[in-house]
Amino acid sequence: MSRIAYVNGQYVPMADAAVHVEDRGYQFADGVYEVIAVSGGVMVDAEPHLVRLDRSLSELQIEAPMSSAALSHVINEVIRRNLVRNGIIYLQVTRGVSRRDHAFPANVRPALVITARNQKSSDMAATGGIEIVTVPDNRWDRCDIKSVSLLPNILAKQTAKEAGAYEAWFVEADGMVTEGSSTNAWIVDTDGNLVTRKLSNSILPGITRQTVQDLASELQIKIIERSFTVEEAKAASEAFITSTTALVMPIRKIDGTEIGSGAPGPVALRLRSHYADHMAQFRERA
Amino acid sequence: MSRIAYVNGQYVPMADAAVHVEDRGYQFADGVYEVIAVSGGVMVDAEPHLVRLDRSLSELQIEAPMSSAALSHVINEVIRRNLVRNGIIYLQVTRGVSRRDHAFPANVRPALVITARNQKSSDMAATGGIEIVTVPDNRWDRCDIKSVSLLPNILAKQTAKEAGAYEAWFVEADGMVTEGSSTNAWIVDTDGNLVTRKLSNSILPGITRQTVQDLASELQIKIIERSFTVEEAKAASEAFITSTTALVMPIRKIDGTEIGSGAPGPVALRLRSHYADHMAQFRERA
Repeated sequence: MSRIAYVNGQYVPMADAAVHVEDRGYQFADGVYEVIAVSGGVMVDAEPHLVRLDRSLSELQIEAPMSSAALSHVINEVIRRNLVRNGIIYLQVTRGVSRRDHAFPANVRPALVITARNQKSSDMAATGGIEIVTVPDNRWDRCDIKSVSLLPNILAKQTAKEAGAYEAWFVEADGMVTEGSSTNAWIVDTDGNLVTRKLSNSILPGITRQTVQDLASELQIKIIERSFTVEEAKAASEAFITSTTALVMPIRKIDGTEIGSGAPGPVALRLRSHYADHMAQFRERA
Repeated sequence: MSRIAYVNGQYVPMADAAVHVEDRGYQFADGVYEVIAVSGGVMVDAEPHLVRLDRSLSELQIEAPMSSAALSHVINEVIRRNLVRNGIIYLQVTRGVSRRDHAFPANVRPALVITARNQKSSDMAATGGIEIVTVPDNRWDRCDIKSVSLLPNILAKQTAKEAGAYEAWFVEADGMVTEGSSTNAWIVDTDGNLVTRKLSNSILPGITRQTVQDLASELQIKIIERSFTVEEAKAASEAFITSTTALVMPIRKIDGTEIGSGAPGPVALRLRSHYADHMAQFRERA
Protein backbone atom coordinates (compact mmCIF):
# COMPACT_ATOMS: atom_id res chain seq x y z
CA MET A 1 0.00 0.00 0.00
CA SER A 2 1.28 3.44 -0.87
CA ARG A 3 1.63 5.72 2.12
CA ILE A 4 -0.77 8.57 2.77
CA ALA A 5 0.14 11.96 4.22
CA TYR A 6 -2.07 14.65 5.66
CA VAL A 7 -1.06 18.01 4.18
CA ASN A 8 -3.01 21.15 5.06
CA GLY A 9 -6.46 19.62 5.11
CA GLN A 10 -6.03 16.86 2.57
CA TYR A 11 -5.05 13.21 2.64
CA VAL A 12 -2.70 12.69 -0.28
CA PRO A 13 -0.41 9.91 -1.54
CA MET A 14 3.03 10.30 0.03
CA ALA A 15 4.58 10.90 -3.41
CA ASP A 16 2.35 13.96 -3.84
CA ALA A 17 2.81 15.31 -0.33
CA ALA A 18 4.18 18.77 -1.00
CA VAL A 19 4.37 22.19 0.57
CA HIS A 20 4.88 25.53 -1.09
CA VAL A 21 8.46 26.75 -1.54
CA GLU A 22 7.51 29.85 0.47
CA ASP A 23 6.33 27.79 3.41
CA ARG A 24 8.32 29.38 6.22
CA GLY A 25 9.36 25.96 7.41
CA TYR A 26 11.35 25.60 4.20
CA GLN A 27 12.91 29.06 4.06
CA PHE A 28 13.36 29.91 7.75
CA ALA A 29 13.06 26.68 9.81
CA ASP A 30 10.04 28.48 11.24
CA GLY A 31 8.20 25.46 12.56
CA VAL A 32 7.96 22.75 15.19
CA TYR A 33 7.36 19.04 15.17
CA GLU A 34 6.58 15.92 17.17
CA VAL A 35 7.38 12.26 16.67
CA ILE A 36 4.89 9.98 18.42
CA ALA A 37 5.21 6.22 18.72
CA VAL A 38 2.30 4.04 17.63
CA SER A 39 1.71 0.79 19.50
CA GLY A 40 -1.03 -1.54 18.27
CA GLY A 41 -2.41 1.30 16.16
CA VAL A 42 -2.66 3.62 19.19
CA MET A 43 -0.53 6.70 19.93
CA VAL A 44 1.80 6.24 22.89
CA ASP A 45 1.57 9.11 25.39
CA ALA A 46 -0.41 11.25 22.95
CA GLU A 47 -1.36 13.80 25.56
CA PRO A 48 2.10 14.93 26.71
CA HIS A 49 3.24 15.06 23.07
CA LEU A 50 0.33 17.33 22.14
CA VAL A 51 0.86 19.45 25.25
CA ARG A 52 4.53 19.87 24.27
CA LEU A 53 3.50 20.73 20.71
CA ASP A 54 1.24 23.47 22.06
CA ARG A 55 4.08 24.81 24.17
CA SER A 56 6.52 24.83 21.22
CA LEU A 57 3.95 26.68 19.10
CA SER A 58 3.24 29.12 21.86
CA GLU A 59 6.96 29.89 22.41
CA LEU A 60 7.25 30.78 18.73
CA GLN A 61 3.88 32.53 18.60
CA ILE A 62 2.67 30.17 15.90
CA GLU A 63 -1.08 29.66 15.99
CA ALA A 64 -2.23 26.08 16.61
CA PRO A 65 -3.64 24.71 13.33
CA MET A 66 -6.55 23.10 15.19
CA SER A 67 -7.56 21.98 18.68
CA SER A 68 -5.71 19.06 20.28
CA ALA A 69 -8.91 17.01 20.00
CA ALA A 70 -9.22 17.70 16.27
CA LEU A 71 -5.50 17.04 15.83
CA SER A 72 -5.80 13.68 17.59
CA HIS A 73 -8.63 12.82 15.24
CA VAL A 74 -6.55 13.64 12.17
CA ILE A 75 -3.51 11.78 13.50
CA ASN A 76 -5.64 8.71 14.13
CA GLU A 77 -6.99 8.95 10.60
CA VAL A 78 -3.41 9.06 9.25
CA ILE A 79 -2.57 6.00 11.37
CA ARG A 80 -5.67 4.22 10.04
CA ARG A 81 -5.11 5.11 6.39
CA ASN A 82 -1.50 3.92 6.59
CA LEU A 83 -2.42 0.71 8.42
CA VAL A 84 0.18 1.52 11.04
CA ARG A 85 0.22 -1.01 13.86
CA ASN A 86 3.63 -0.39 15.36
CA GLY A 87 5.60 2.55 14.16
CA ILE A 88 5.69 6.31 14.36
CA ILE A 89 3.77 9.36 13.32
CA TYR A 90 5.61 12.54 12.32
CA LEU A 91 3.81 15.83 12.70
CA GLN A 92 5.09 19.25 11.66
CA VAL A 93 3.50 22.66 12.08
CA THR A 94 5.01 25.72 10.45
CA ARG A 95 3.99 29.37 10.54
CA GLY A 96 2.57 29.00 7.04
CA VAL A 97 3.13 30.29 3.54
CA SER A 98 3.97 33.92 2.93
CA ARG A 99 6.10 36.06 0.65
CA ARG A 100 9.63 35.78 2.02
CA ASP A 101 10.29 38.32 4.76
CA HIS A 102 11.94 37.56 8.10
CA ALA A 103 9.37 39.05 10.47
CA PHE A 104 6.14 37.19 11.21
CA PRO A 105 3.64 37.64 8.37
CA ALA A 106 0.11 38.86 9.13
CA ASN A 107 -2.97 36.79 8.38
CA VAL A 108 -1.19 33.57 7.60
CA ARG A 109 -2.59 30.14 8.44
CA PRO A 110 -0.21 27.64 10.02
CA ALA A 111 0.72 24.68 7.82
CA LEU A 112 0.24 21.14 9.11
CA VAL A 113 1.83 17.98 7.75
CA ILE A 114 1.36 14.51 9.26
CA THR A 115 2.94 11.30 8.03
CA ALA A 116 3.02 7.82 9.53
CA ARG A 117 4.91 4.62 8.96
CA ASN A 118 5.30 1.15 10.38
CA GLN A 119 8.72 0.77 11.92
CA LYS A 120 10.30 -1.98 13.94
CA SER A 121 11.35 -0.96 17.42
CA SER A 122 15.01 -0.64 18.22
CA ASP A 123 15.61 -4.08 19.81
CA MET A 124 18.57 -5.22 17.73
CA ALA A 125 20.89 -2.43 18.74
CA ALA A 126 19.87 -2.88 22.37
CA THR A 127 21.18 -6.41 22.56
CA GLY A 128 24.74 -5.24 22.66
CA GLY A 129 24.19 -1.60 23.51
CA ILE A 130 25.23 1.36 21.42
CA GLU A 131 28.22 3.62 21.01
CA ILE A 132 28.23 7.35 21.65
CA VAL A 133 30.62 10.02 20.45
CA THR A 134 30.74 13.48 21.96
CA VAL A 135 30.70 16.79 20.08
CA PRO A 136 30.75 20.41 21.26
CA ASP A 137 27.26 21.76 21.88
CA ASN A 138 27.13 24.47 19.23
CA ARG A 139 23.37 24.95 19.10
CA TRP A 140 21.24 27.99 19.81
CA ASP A 141 19.94 28.69 23.30
CA ARG A 142 16.34 27.47 22.90
CA CYS A 143 16.81 23.74 22.59
CA ASP A 144 13.72 23.35 24.79
CA ILE A 145 11.61 24.26 21.74
CA LYS A 146 11.13 21.24 19.47
CA SER A 147 11.78 23.25 16.33
CA VAL A 148 12.80 22.05 12.88
CA SER A 149 15.94 24.18 13.20
CA LEU A 150 17.93 20.94 13.35
CA LEU A 151 21.04 21.62 11.30
CA PRO A 152 23.49 21.21 14.23
CA ASN A 153 21.65 18.04 15.21
CA ILE A 154 21.99 16.40 11.80
CA LEU A 155 25.66 17.35 11.62
CA ALA A 156 26.20 15.77 15.05
CA LYS A 157 24.31 12.64 14.04
CA GLN A 158 26.39 12.42 10.87
CA THR A 159 29.58 12.70 12.95
CA ALA A 160 28.31 9.80 15.04
CA LYS A 161 27.45 7.74 11.99
CA GLU A 162 30.85 8.30 10.41
CA ALA A 163 32.48 7.17 13.67
CA GLY A 164 30.37 4.01 13.66
CA ALA A 165 28.36 5.28 16.62
CA TYR A 166 24.58 5.43 17.08
CA GLU A 167 24.34 8.87 18.63
CA ALA A 168 26.33 12.00 19.44
CA TRP A 169 26.14 13.72 22.80
CA PHE A 170 26.40 17.49 22.86
CA VAL A 171 28.90 18.75 25.45
CA GLU A 172 29.05 22.33 26.69
CA ALA A 173 32.27 24.31 27.05
CA ASP A 174 32.28 23.47 30.79
CA GLY A 175 32.39 19.76 29.97
CA MET A 176 28.75 19.08 30.88
CA VAL A 177 26.66 16.84 28.66
CA THR A 178 23.41 18.45 27.55
CA GLU A 179 21.70 15.74 25.48
CA GLY A 180 22.00 13.69 22.33
CA SER A 181 21.27 14.93 18.83
CA SER A 182 17.79 13.37 19.05
CA THR A 183 17.75 11.73 22.48
CA ASN A 184 18.09 12.56 26.18
CA ALA A 185 21.19 11.41 28.08
CA TRP A 186 21.30 9.40 31.31
CA ILE A 187 23.80 7.70 33.57
CA VAL A 188 23.52 5.36 36.55
CA ASP A 189 25.93 6.44 39.25
CA THR A 190 27.93 4.01 41.36
CA ASP A 191 25.22 4.17 44.07
CA GLY A 192 22.64 2.98 41.55
CA ASN A 193 20.92 6.37 41.23
CA LEU A 194 19.63 7.61 37.90
CA VAL A 195 21.19 10.89 36.83
CA THR A 196 19.81 13.05 34.02
CA ARG A 197 20.08 16.72 33.31
CA LYS A 198 17.48 19.08 34.76
CA LEU A 199 15.07 20.67 32.28
CA SER A 200 16.13 24.09 31.04
CA ASN A 201 16.47 25.96 27.74
CA SER A 202 19.48 23.70 27.01
CA ILE A 203 17.62 20.44 26.46
CA LEU A 204 14.41 19.12 25.02
CA PRO A 205 11.83 18.06 27.60
CA GLY A 206 11.68 14.49 26.32
CA ILE A 207 8.36 12.67 26.67
CA THR A 208 10.18 9.35 26.99
CA ARG A 209 12.49 11.04 29.51
CA GLN A 210 9.42 11.87 31.64
CA THR A 211 7.87 8.42 31.27
CA VAL A 212 11.14 6.78 32.27
CA GLN A 213 11.27 9.03 35.35
CA ASP A 214 7.75 7.90 36.24
CA LEU A 215 8.68 4.24 35.73
CA ALA A 216 11.84 4.65 37.79
CA SER A 217 9.81 6.17 40.62
CA GLU A 218 7.45 3.19 40.55
CA LEU A 219 10.49 0.92 40.73
CA GLN A 220 11.83 3.01 43.63
CA ILE A 221 14.96 3.95 41.75
CA LYS A 222 16.20 7.31 42.96
CA ILE A 223 16.42 10.03 40.29
CA ILE A 224 18.86 12.92 40.57
CA GLU A 225 18.30 15.73 38.09
CA ARG A 226 21.66 17.38 37.57
CA SER A 227 24.30 17.92 34.90
CA PHE A 228 27.16 15.47 34.48
CA THR A 229 30.45 15.52 32.61
CA VAL A 230 31.65 13.15 29.90
CA GLU A 231 34.31 11.90 32.33
CA GLU A 232 31.66 11.10 34.92
CA ALA A 233 29.61 9.28 32.29
CA LYS A 234 32.63 7.22 31.28
CA ALA A 235 33.15 6.22 34.92
CA ALA A 236 29.45 5.55 35.58
CA SER A 237 27.99 2.10 36.26
CA GLU A 238 25.73 2.48 33.25
CA ALA A 239 24.70 5.01 30.67
CA PHE A 240 21.76 5.08 28.31
CA ILE A 241 19.66 7.30 26.08
CA THR A 242 15.92 7.74 25.75
CA SER A 243 13.67 8.90 22.93
CA THR A 244 10.42 8.01 21.19
CA THR A 245 12.24 5.81 18.71
CA ALA A 246 15.28 4.64 20.72
CA LEU A 247 13.06 3.89 23.75
CA VAL A 248 15.57 3.11 26.51
CA MET A 249 18.85 2.28 24.78
CA PRO A 250 21.87 1.10 26.80
CA ILE A 251 25.27 2.55 25.95
CA ARG A 252 28.25 0.30 25.54
CA LYS A 253 30.94 2.87 24.79
CA ILE A 254 31.40 6.63 24.99
CA ASP A 255 34.20 8.00 22.81
CA GLY A 256 35.66 4.51 22.73
CA THR A 257 35.64 3.99 26.51
CA GLU A 258 33.62 1.03 27.75
CA ILE A 259 30.89 1.89 30.23
CA GLY A 260 30.65 -0.46 33.24
CA SER A 261 31.08 -4.01 31.99
CA GLY A 262 30.82 -2.85 28.37
CA ALA A 263 27.47 -4.59 28.07
CA PRO A 264 23.92 -3.25 28.66
CA GLY A 265 23.51 -2.66 32.41
CA PRO A 266 20.76 -4.07 34.62
CA VAL A 267 19.11 -0.72 35.40
CA ALA A 268 18.85 0.26 31.73
CA LEU A 269 17.56 -3.18 30.78
CA ARG A 270 15.00 -3.11 33.58
CA LEU A 271 13.78 0.32 32.51
CA ARG A 272 13.71 -0.77 28.88
CA SER A 273 11.59 -3.77 29.82
CA HIS A 274 9.20 -1.62 31.84
CA TYR A 275 9.05 0.89 29.01
CA ALA A 276 8.08 -1.97 26.67
CA ASP A 277 5.28 -2.85 29.11
CA HIS A 278 4.22 0.79 29.10
CA MET A 279 3.95 0.73 25.30
CA ALA A 280 2.13 -2.61 25.41
CA GLN A 281 -0.59 -1.05 27.57
CA PHE A 282 -1.58 1.13 24.64
CA ARG A 283 -1.77 -1.92 22.37
CA GLU A 284 -3.92 -3.73 24.91
CA ARG A 285 -6.28 -0.78 25.23
CA ALA A 286 -6.82 -0.73 21.45
CA MET B 1 2.05 38.30 -15.17
CA SER B 2 2.04 35.44 -12.74
CA ARG B 3 5.42 34.70 -11.27
CA ILE B 4 7.46 31.69 -12.33
CA ALA B 5 9.71 29.60 -10.08
CA TYR B 6 12.39 27.10 -10.95
CA VAL B 7 11.90 23.96 -8.88
CA ASN B 8 14.13 20.94 -9.40
CA GLY B 9 14.45 21.17 -13.15
CA GLN B 10 11.11 22.74 -14.04
CA TYR B 11 9.81 26.25 -14.50
CA VAL B 12 6.42 26.35 -12.79
CA PRO B 13 3.87 29.02 -11.87
CA MET B 14 4.69 30.37 -8.41
CA ALA B 15 1.38 29.06 -7.05
CA ASP B 16 2.45 25.51 -7.97
CA ALA B 17 6.03 25.83 -6.74
CA ALA B 18 6.22 23.02 -4.22
CA VAL B 19 8.74 20.72 -2.60
CA HIS B 20 8.17 17.35 -1.00
CA VAL B 21 7.35 17.27 2.72
CA GLU B 22 10.40 15.05 3.20
CA ASP B 23 12.73 17.57 1.58
CA ARG B 24 15.38 17.90 4.27
CA GLY B 25 15.14 21.65 4.04
CA TYR B 26 11.62 21.38 5.45
CA GLN B 27 12.26 18.84 8.19
CA PHE B 28 15.85 19.64 9.24
CA ALA B 29 16.75 23.13 7.92
CA ASP B 30 19.32 21.14 5.95
CA GLY B 31 19.97 23.67 3.23
CA VAL B 32 21.57 26.94 2.22
CA TYR B 33 20.48 29.97 0.24
CA GLU B 34 21.49 33.17 -1.50
CA VAL B 35 19.67 36.41 -2.19
CA ILE B 36 21.11 38.26 -5.20
CA ALA B 37 20.09 41.74 -6.32
CA VAL B 38 19.01 42.28 -9.91
CA SER B 39 19.82 45.61 -11.53
CA GLY B 40 18.50 46.27 -15.01
CA GLY B 41 17.81 42.56 -15.42
CA VAL B 42 21.40 41.63 -14.49
CA MET B 43 22.61 39.94 -11.31
CA VAL B 44 24.69 42.21 -9.08
CA ASP B 45 27.95 40.59 -7.97
CA ALA B 46 26.84 37.17 -9.20
CA GLU B 47 30.28 35.65 -8.88
CA PRO B 48 30.94 36.22 -5.17
CA HIS B 49 27.37 35.08 -4.40
CA LEU B 50 27.90 31.83 -6.28
CA VAL B 51 31.32 31.34 -4.69
CA ARG B 52 29.75 31.80 -1.25
CA LEU B 53 26.99 29.35 -2.18
CA ASP B 54 29.60 26.77 -3.10
CA ARG B 55 31.36 27.34 0.20
CA SER B 56 28.11 26.97 2.20
CA LEU B 57 27.32 23.73 0.35
CA SER B 58 30.81 22.44 0.87
CA GLU B 59 30.76 23.18 4.62
CA LEU B 60 27.58 21.10 4.92
CA GLN B 61 28.79 18.45 2.46
CA ILE B 62 25.79 19.07 0.20
CA GLU B 63 26.52 18.35 -3.43
CA ALA B 64 26.20 21.32 -5.79
CA PRO B 65 23.05 20.80 -7.89
CA MET B 66 24.89 21.97 -11.02
CA SER B 67 27.95 23.95 -12.08
CA SER B 68 28.08 27.67 -11.35
CA ALA B 69 27.85 28.32 -15.09
CA ALA B 70 24.71 26.21 -15.44
CA LEU B 71 23.28 27.79 -12.30
CA SER B 72 23.88 31.29 -13.71
CA HIS B 73 22.07 30.24 -16.85
CA VAL B 74 19.04 29.02 -14.89
CA ILE B 75 19.00 32.12 -12.68
CA ASN B 76 19.05 34.34 -15.76
CA GLU B 77 16.18 32.35 -17.21
CA VAL B 78 14.18 32.88 -13.99
CA ILE B 79 14.96 36.60 -14.20
CA ARG B 80 13.86 36.65 -17.83
CA ARG B 81 10.64 34.66 -17.32
CA ASN B 82 9.66 36.93 -14.42
CA LEU B 83 10.49 40.12 -16.34
CA VAL B 84 12.61 41.25 -13.40
CA ARG B 85 14.36 44.54 -14.07
CA ASN B 86 15.22 45.68 -10.56
CA GLY B 87 14.62 43.28 -7.74
CA ILE B 88 15.99 40.12 -6.20
CA ILE B 89 16.43 36.48 -6.91
CA TYR B 90 16.14 33.95 -4.09
CA LEU B 91 17.96 30.67 -4.47
CA GLN B 92 17.82 27.71 -2.09
CA VAL B 93 19.66 24.40 -2.22
CA THR B 94 18.82 21.62 0.21
CA ARG B 95 20.29 18.17 0.66
CA GLY B 96 17.27 16.69 -1.08
CA VAL B 97 14.33 14.41 -0.39
CA SER B 98 14.76 11.31 1.70
CA ARG B 99 12.88 9.26 4.28
CA ARG B 100 13.27 11.18 7.54
CA ASP B 101 16.47 10.23 9.37
CA HIS B 102 18.93 12.69 10.88
CA ALA B 103 22.17 11.47 9.29
CA PHE B 104 22.96 12.32 5.67
CA PRO B 105 21.06 10.05 3.28
CA ALA B 106 22.92 8.15 0.57
CA ASN B 107 22.24 8.66 -3.12
CA VAL B 108 20.09 11.72 -2.78
CA ARG B 109 20.05 14.57 -5.28
CA PRO B 110 20.19 18.11 -3.92
CA ALA B 111 17.00 20.13 -4.36
CA LEU B 112 17.16 23.53 -6.04
CA VAL B 113 14.54 26.29 -5.91
CA ILE B 114 14.91 29.71 -7.52
CA THR B 115 12.39 32.53 -7.39
CA ALA B 116 12.63 36.15 -8.50
CA ARG B 117 10.65 39.30 -8.05
CA ASN B 118 10.77 42.96 -8.89
CA GLN B 119 11.31 44.97 -5.75
CA LYS B 120 11.94 48.63 -5.14
CA SER B 121 15.21 49.40 -3.48
CA SER B 122 15.22 50.62 0.09
CA ASP B 123 15.38 54.39 -0.56
CA MET B 124 12.48 55.52 1.59
CA ALA B 125 13.84 54.25 4.87
CA ALA B 126 17.26 55.68 4.05
CA THR B 127 16.00 59.23 3.93
CA GLY B 128 15.71 59.43 7.67
CA GLY B 129 17.78 56.43 8.61
CA ILE B 130 16.60 53.40 10.51
CA GLU B 131 16.30 52.27 14.10
CA ILE B 132 18.08 49.27 15.57
CA VAL B 133 17.31 47.27 18.68
CA THR B 134 19.80 44.89 20.24
CA VAL B 135 19.13 41.29 21.29
CA PRO B 136 21.36 38.61 22.81
CA ASP B 137 23.15 36.55 20.17
CA ASN B 138 21.61 33.15 20.86
CA ARG B 139 22.49 31.48 17.58
CA TRP B 140 24.58 28.43 16.83
CA ASP B 141 28.31 28.72 16.20
CA ARG B 142 28.33 28.47 12.39
CA CYS B 143 26.74 31.75 11.36
CA ASP B 144 29.32 31.92 8.57
CA ILE B 145 27.28 29.30 6.70
CA LYS B 146 24.32 30.89 4.92
CA SER B 147 21.93 28.16 6.01
CA VAL B 148 18.15 28.22 6.20
CA SER B 149 18.43 27.51 9.92
CA LEU B 150 17.09 31.03 10.53
CA LEU B 151 14.74 30.65 13.47
CA PRO B 152 16.77 32.91 15.83
CA ASN B 153 17.04 35.45 13.01
CA ILE B 154 13.31 35.68 12.40
CA LEU B 155 12.65 35.96 16.12
CA ALA B 156 15.17 38.81 16.33
CA LYS B 157 13.64 40.55 13.30
CA GLN B 158 10.20 40.18 14.85
CA THR B 159 11.51 41.75 18.09
CA ALA B 160 12.78 44.67 16.00
CA LYS B 161 9.49 45.01 14.15
CA GLU B 162 7.47 45.02 17.37
CA ALA B 163 9.76 47.75 18.72
CA GLY B 164 9.18 49.82 15.57
CA ALA B 165 12.76 49.19 14.45
CA TYR B 166 14.07 48.03 11.08
CA GLU B 167 16.65 45.56 12.29
CA ALA B 168 17.97 43.79 15.39
CA TRP B 169 21.66 43.51 16.16
CA PHE B 170 22.87 40.35 17.85
CA VAL B 171 25.10 41.03 20.84
CA GLU B 172 27.36 38.46 22.46
CA ALA B 173 27.62 37.89 26.21
CA ASP B 174 30.79 40.04 26.23
CA GLY B 175 28.83 43.01 24.84
CA MET B 176 30.25 42.77 21.33
CA VAL B 177 27.94 43.19 18.34
CA THR B 178 28.15 40.32 15.87
CA GLU B 179 25.77 41.35 13.09
CA GLY B 180 22.12 42.04 12.31
CA SER B 181 19.46 39.39 11.79
CA SER B 182 19.93 39.70 8.02
CA THR B 183 22.58 42.43 7.65
CA ASN B 184 26.17 43.22 8.60
CA ALA B 185 26.86 45.93 11.20
CA TRP B 186 29.16 48.94 10.81
CA ILE B 187 30.14 52.08 12.66
CA VAL B 188 32.19 55.13 11.76
CA ASP B 189 34.50 56.01 14.63
CA THR B 190 35.21 59.58 15.74
CA ASP B 191 38.34 59.58 13.55
CA GLY B 192 36.21 58.83 10.48
CA ASN B 193 37.40 55.22 10.15
CA LEU B 194 35.01 52.47 9.16
CA VAL B 195 34.74 49.70 11.74
CA THR B 196 33.16 46.32 11.06
CA ARG B 197 33.63 42.95 12.64
CA LYS B 198 36.29 40.62 11.28
CA LEU B 199 35.06 37.53 9.44
CA SER B 200 34.80 34.42 11.60
CA ASN B 201 32.29 31.67 12.35
CA SER B 202 30.22 34.31 14.20
CA ILE B 203 29.06 36.34 11.20
CA LEU B 204 28.03 35.91 7.62
CA PRO B 205 30.62 36.97 5.05
CA GLY B 206 28.31 39.51 3.44
CA ILE B 207 28.79 40.17 -0.25
CA THR B 208 27.61 43.77 0.18
CA ARG B 209 29.97 44.00 3.17
CA GLN B 210 32.85 43.10 0.83
CA THR B 211 31.75 45.45 -1.94
CA VAL B 212 31.43 48.31 0.54
CA GLN B 213 34.95 47.58 1.77
CA ASP B 214 36.17 47.76 -1.81
CA LEU B 215 34.32 51.04 -2.39
CA ALA B 216 35.66 52.47 0.86
CA SER B 217 39.20 51.60 -0.20
CA GLU B 218 38.67 53.39 -3.51
CA LEU B 219 37.44 56.40 -1.54
CA GLN B 220 40.51 56.12 0.70
CA ILE B 221 38.39 55.61 3.80
CA LYS B 222 40.31 53.54 6.33
CA ILE B 223 38.69 50.23 7.33
CA ILE B 224 39.35 48.62 10.68
CA GLU B 225 38.10 45.07 11.03
CA ARG B 226 37.42 44.51 14.72
CA SER B 227 34.56 43.87 17.11
CA PHE B 228 32.75 46.77 18.78
CA THR B 229 30.32 47.07 21.66
CA VAL B 230 26.82 48.48 21.64
CA GLU B 231 28.05 51.34 23.82
CA GLU B 232 30.77 52.15 21.30
CA ALA B 233 28.21 52.09 18.49
CA LYS B 234 25.95 54.46 20.42
CA ALA B 235 28.86 56.88 20.84
CA ALA B 236 30.04 56.53 17.22
CA SER B 237 29.88 59.31 14.63
CA GLU B 238 27.75 57.11 12.42
CA ALA B 239 26.40 53.61 12.20
CA PHE B 240 24.90 51.69 9.32
CA ILE B 241 24.03 48.25 8.03
CA THR B 242 24.68 46.53 4.73
CA SER B 243 22.96 43.74 2.85
CA THR B 244 21.81 42.79 -0.62
CA THR B 245 18.39 44.35 0.00
CA ALA B 246 19.21 47.11 2.53
CA LEU B 247 22.24 48.19 0.45
CA VAL B 248 23.98 50.73 2.73
CA MET B 249 21.39 51.85 5.27
CA PRO B 250 22.21 54.61 7.77
CA ILE B 251 21.17 54.11 11.39
CA ARG B 252 19.39 56.89 13.25
CA LYS B 253 18.95 55.22 16.63
CA ILE B 254 20.24 52.19 18.50
CA ASP B 255 18.06 51.06 21.41
CA GLY B 256 16.52 54.54 21.43
CA THR B 257 19.85 56.41 21.54
CA GLU B 258 20.48 58.82 18.67
CA ILE B 259 23.64 58.14 16.70
CA GLY B 260 25.69 61.22 15.82
CA SER B 261 23.32 63.97 14.79
CA GLY B 262 20.41 61.50 14.68
CA ALA B 263 20.32 61.81 10.89
CA PRO B 264 22.07 59.76 8.18
CA GLY B 265 25.78 60.53 8.36
CA PRO B 266 27.99 61.72 5.49
CA VAL B 267 30.14 58.57 5.30
CA ALA B 268 27.14 56.25 5.12
CA LEU B 269 25.43 58.45 2.53
CA ARG B 270 28.57 58.63 0.44
CA LEU B 271 28.99 54.85 0.53
CA ARG B 272 25.31 54.41 -0.25
CA SER B 273 25.66 56.67 -3.25
CA HIS B 274 28.74 54.81 -4.48
CA TYR B 275 26.98 51.51 -3.91
CA ALA B 276 24.10 52.78 -6.09
CA ASP B 277 26.68 53.57 -8.78
CA HIS B 278 28.10 50.07 -8.37
CA MET B 279 24.63 48.60 -8.99
CA ALA B 280 24.05 50.94 -11.90
CA GLN B 281 27.14 49.54 -13.64
CA PHE B 282 25.36 46.20 -13.98
CA ARG B 283 22.33 47.94 -15.50
CA GLU B 284 24.53 49.77 -17.95
CA ARG B 285 26.29 46.59 -18.99
CA ALA B 286 22.93 44.95 -19.79
